[in-house]
Amino acid sequence: MPLTTLVRFLAPLFGLITLAFVAILFQWVNKQDPGSPRMREIASYIQEGANAFLRREFMTIAPFVIALAAILWVTMGKWQIAFGFVMGALFSMVAVFIGMNAAVRANVRTTQAARSSPAKALTVAFRGGGTMGLTIVALNLLGVSLLFILFGVTPENAPETVHLLVGFGFGASLSALFAQLGGGIYTKAADVGADLVGKVEVGIPEDDPRNAAVIADLVGDNVGDCAGRGADLFESGTDNLIATMIVSTAFISLYKSHSWVALLFPLLTQAIGAMGAILGIIAVKGSEKRSPIAAVNIGLAVTGVFSLISFWILGVVVMESYPIFWSLTLGLGAAIAVSLIIQYYTSIDQKPVQEIAKASRSGSALNIMSGFSYGMESVGLPILTIGGVTLAAYIIGGGWMSGIFALTTATLGINEMQGIIMASDAFGPIADNAGGIAEMAGLGTEVRRAGDALDAAGNITKAITKGYGMACALMTSVVVMFAYLVEAAKLTGISLTNVQNIPVVVVNPVNIVAMMIGATVPFIFSAFTIRAVGVTAYKVVEEVRRQFREIPGLLQGKAKPDYARCVDITTRNALWHMILPTLVGTIVPIIVGFVLGIWALAAYLIAVKIVGALLATFMFNAGGAWDNAKKYIEDGHYGGKGSETHRAAVTGDTFGDPLKDTAGPSLHILIKLQNILAITLLPLFVAYGVKW
Amino acid sequence: MPLTTLVRFLAPLFGLITLAFVAILFQWVNKQDPGSPRMREIASYIQEGANAFLRREFMTIAPFVIALAAILWVTMGKWQIAFGFVMGALFSMVAVFIGMNAAVRANVRTTQAARSSPAKALTVAFRGGGTMGLTIVALNLLGVSLLFILFGVTPENAPETVHLLVGFGFGASLSALFAQLGGGIYTKAADVGADLVGKVEVGIPEDDPRNAAVIADLVGDNVGDCAGRGADLFESGTDNLIATMIVSTAFISLYKSHSWVALLFPLLTQAIGAMGAILGIIAVKGSEKRSPIAAVNIGLAVTGVFSLISFWILGVVVMESYPIFWSLTLGLGAAIAVSLIIQYYTSIDQKPVQEIAKASRSGSALNIMSGFSYGMESVGLPILTIGGVTLAAYIIGGGWMSGIFALTTATLGINEMQGIIMASDAFGPIADNAGGIAEMAGLGTEVRRAGDALDAAGNITKAITKGYGMACALMTSVVVMFAYLVEAAKLTGISLTNVQNIPVVVVNPVNIVAMMIGATVPFIFSAFTIRAVGVTAYKVVEEVRRQFREIPGLLQGKAKPDYARCVDITTRNALWHMILPTLVGTIVPIIVGFVLGIWALAAYLIAVKIVGALLATFMFNAGGAWDNAKKYIEDGHYGGKGSETHRAAVTGDTFGDPLKDTAGPSLHILIKLQNILAITLLPLFVAYGVKW
Repeated sequence: MPLTTLVRFLAPLFGLITLAFVAILFQWVNKQDPGSPRMREIASYIQEGANAFLRREFMTIAPFVIALAAILWVTMGKWQIAFGFVMGALFSMVAVFIGMNAAVRANVRTTQAARSSPAKALTVAFRGGGTMGLTIVALNLLGVSLLFILFGVTPENAPETVHLLVGFGFGASLSALFAQLGGGIYTKAADVGADLVGKVEVGIPEDDPRNAAVIADLVGDNVGDCAGRGADLFESGTDNLIATMIVSTAFISLYKSHSWVALLFPLLTQAIGAMGAILGIIAVKGSEKRSPIAAVNIGLAVTGVFSLISFWILGVVVMESYPIFWSLTLGLGAAIAVSLIIQYYTSIDQKPVQEIAKASRSGSALNIMSGFSYGMESVGLPILTIGGVTLAAYIIGGGWMSGIFALTTATLGINEMQGIIMASDAFGPIADNAGGIAEMAGLGTEVRRAGDALDAAGNITKAITKGYGMACALMTSVVVMFAYLVEAAKLTGISLTNVQNIPVVVVNPVNIVAMMIGATVPFIFSAFTIRAVGVTAYKVVEEVRRQFREIPGLLQGKAKPDYARCVDITTRNALWHMILPTLVGTIVPIIVGFVLGIWALAAYLIAVKIVGALLATFMFNAGGAWDNAKKYIEDGHYGGKGSETHRAAVTGDTFGDPLKDTAGPSLHILIKLQNILAITLLPLFVAYGVKW
Repeated sequence: MPLTTLVRFLAPLFGLITLAFVAILFQWVNKQDPGSPRMREIASYIQEGANAFLRREFMTIAPFVIALAAILWVTMGKWQIAFGFVMGALFSMVAVFIGMNAAVRANVRTTQAARSSPAKALTVAFRGGGTMGLTIVALNLLGVSLLFILFGVTPENAPETVHLLVGFGFGASLSALFAQLGGGIYTKAADVGADLVGKVEVGIPEDDPRNAAVIADLVGDNVGDCAGRGADLFESGTDNLIATMIVSTAFISLYKSHSWVALLFPLLTQAIGAMGAILGIIAVKGSEKRSPIAAVNIGLAVTGVFSLISFWILGVVVMESYPIFWSLTLGLGAAIAVSLIIQYYTSIDQKPVQEIAKASRSGSALNIMSGFSYGMESVGLPILTIGGVTLAAYIIGGGWMSGIFALTTATLGINEMQGIIMASDAFGPIADNAGGIAEMAGLGTEVRRAGDALDAAGNITKAITKGYGMACALMTSVVVMFAYLVEAAKLTGISLTNVQNIPVVVVNPVNIVAMMIGATVPFIFSAFTIRAVGVTAYKVVEEVRRQFREIPGLLQGKAKPDYARCVDITTRNALWHMILPTLVGTIVPIIVGFVLGIWALAAYLIAVKIVGALLATFMFNAGGAWDNAKKYIEDGHYGGKGSETHRAAVTGDTFGDPLKDTAGPSLHILIKLQNILAITLLPLFVAYGVKW
């Protein structure tokens, strides 16, 4: 048994090593020159705003978490679930807190670096993002593996004990939903609000210091795009780890004599993934000789190759199984393929974006129509790719039921890239912020040009991340559903060996109704989320207008706006409006579980995840395409900036904002949250739910 | 056995009686005064354009139908399927042809009637619509019951013979898809194209005779809203009749000794439904004392009460079964409830529409955002209602499997209203056309005010019809899926008595992939459909611009535009662009059936219908709400017509047009078409498909 022990402690060890590297990166970023006093002043506003938001968010969540933990403890009778739940929420928040603090330090230092060397600026921005990426991987690994040890899970008692870990996943999911919803509403309300008054009504440029909402806008980049996405990926990793462990306990006996390694196999892949992320992040270095995106691609390639090699070692050498190697590789391949497809639909130099720009010549209605149509079209290939990979892994794994294990393995393959993907994603808002700071501090065009180059690279990495995030969310949620199934079978004494034994028949009217409800939830959830942005944005608009009206000399640049008030209004409204969608996302599956029963809940979950993934992809792609169609026109096509065509394109861009940065990412989390919530509460549904 | 024979011949007899009444109505409409020479001239343009479109459409479809019939005959080896297929397509086209010809006669006569008496105008318009409604019911009843007799289907041989009828349903479905797609693209391309140049660029009012696209726009009302919806409801009725008969053969032994009546039961309800429709249509009479909508409501109430009484007789007296009475009533109740909910989301005097109007104050982006959000929200209650009714009927019927029969009975209850609903729907475009003719003929404000009152009533009936159409489509498609299941079980020798025997498990990865594909298809289909409107509209825009540029004196009203050219361009482009969505809608289920197998195809169909119904409802409601938000502003709110707010609201209205009148209705047909196609080709999938 010493080998088991070794592997068990390997995971937390790798977690600690990664955390040490986080400290080094953070220090490195912090050591960079933060620039002139004016730049530092602006940066401090952003830091304060972002931290104030996180503090308030944590305070809002804390009572929920404590109350829910108490309820979980009382109703389920297991302290581990409640404890894990609190830990999951806490680890998620800490990861986000550390990562975001790196980001709000990296932004001004990126601006300053850009003054002397654009290459250096890239390195600073990417390492700032890398801090977020690695923190997530490290805390994920640490959290799950520590609970693993604390709860005394061993290969022998795993079937009875491993489900104790689900509390951690549930905590991480709930925290992620709050972070993404609150942050997402914040960032887009501030953005839309600032633009509507600044750009449209008053006619001052973006990020102009006279706009009272400009700091809120910059804060939004950090709390929405950076912290929100961080919590999202933390959740993906956690859910995936726990679900694959649960599935492993049911299926691993099929894999020769390696049952002990197999249970720890998910932890092992994550541990190795952390090393891959570190290597990749180190590899990204700005250079005068290559474009920023080329530098980022080197990092992605390093992690990718490292992953492939590790897949070979893990699959073929350790597990002695080619199917495992191929499943891992298929997962990685799916992530890359989906990202490339999404790039096609959102890139400025491809047909969809240029067609949307062209349609804008006939006004905003045709701009919207065209983007809407391309957005709907764009869901086809990504979903087909994921469907194809699902089927391929299932066949390679040997059909029912060893194929299910292969499927879970494929999602581990996707997750392998988590650290570096998160780094490239956080890099985007940091670059964005850096540009904003340059604008506000009135730095020269030289600096701004360097910023634009970073920004362009950031837009591409954002598209990549979104494709990756969707693939992650959909595949992970399929695996979590199988974990649900394994647990449900265990609790009801059903054998899974024959697929026909499972009473989740598609054509049972009870299950059909469950699917109808499941398919409806993402619509309602999106409706409330998008409306929250609209309502909050309107509050921001009113405040900015008020300041222009009531502060004498503001428009002439002789007086300063009250940034803090805008930050405060956005914070309060964003946090308030995240409650309704959260309730929809949590209460409906509980009702379905109790009223329609546990098998109908499985049908419900399938519908939620498929429709959620489709809507999210539609929103990402349509939003991204509208954004770039506007940029394409700004580059001088069809009349360029200020033309009627440009005006029409701004409509799509503005409408697309809450889709791509609020509702879309929140849907990813909704999918995963509902799955993990269902597993957590499964014993209650079995005990007290209606039996059909 | 004489009673069986009686009932068998009752259905065609009722069909003939209804057809006789159609002739009487048509004559009555035709006898009305068609007004001044100028009015008759305009009306003749519309008639010619509409008939030219239908002719071209039939010519486009004919080769498809003939080729497909030949393929069906050869591959399936049964002449009945091929013959039924041709008959289905033919009956659908004839029904549409007769109905539309009544509509294009009723329009100008409504205008003329409005000059002397607004009350009379309502009667004319509604009886014009009634001709369409009754034609559909009559031909539906006649077609199915004649084939029933021709193929020699009897209660004894029904299990082997009843599926021969599916060809008729398939033919009706394919014809409906072409009619709705072609007509839907036509009507919105002409509408958007006419508005973009006329209202926005040149600044002339709607329906101004100087606009070259104005006749195409008026033709569009008939070929899209009227003919398209007619084909849609014809298909619903047909599919429903055939599917319930197939399901009956499997389940009816559960219902005491009435197996022979039971097989004919669907025909019987339809026959009685035809009588209800006739009574309802007669009951609608304009009066100076009540508003137009009150008059229409009287007709709906008459049919509703008649239906309820007939449900009691059919269920309790004839079938001696309270569950049947309740299921029929539940179906009717669902249709009413869904219509009321949809009215809330689209009515000008309710919160959603007024909030959208309010949001328009901050520009077109927030107008779109608000409507999008309410549209997404609006799917919740309708789907929940249908889910609730499904569950209730299933429980009332006694769970698996007698509950399935109750479910099919509920859809018969919905279909009972078909005739009167279609009449109220066709009434809308007739009133619309009447207003357009008044505008073009330069009639006084008196006439126009009467037209506006009719138009307002038409908008409400349109909302009712759309809710009804959705409830019909979703519930019918569920029943058709059960018919699929019954056939599949028969062909594979599986007993359906135990639900667990059915190998369509939700959690089998093959089925999950099928559901992913199924959920994606409505997105892709909508994308292509909406794009088709955009592209065709742009052609219209170019032509109208060209005529203003090249015809001297046109803008000054000294010369006439070339209406025919616009009609021709729209016709050609609409018919060309319906091909791609049709291919998507027909080829994907065939691939799934062969590659993923017949059980995965059932999973696929479930996903298509749920996601299709959700998207369609979203599109209807968002589109309707945007339309009315614009009208609300035009009524003098937030600055009224010509204000910036109004400009913003026009964006939503224009964007919403192809959603609510092209993609949305086409989705309904897509859902039903794929189901009936799957049943038709099932023997081929069983014989040659992959077995998982």
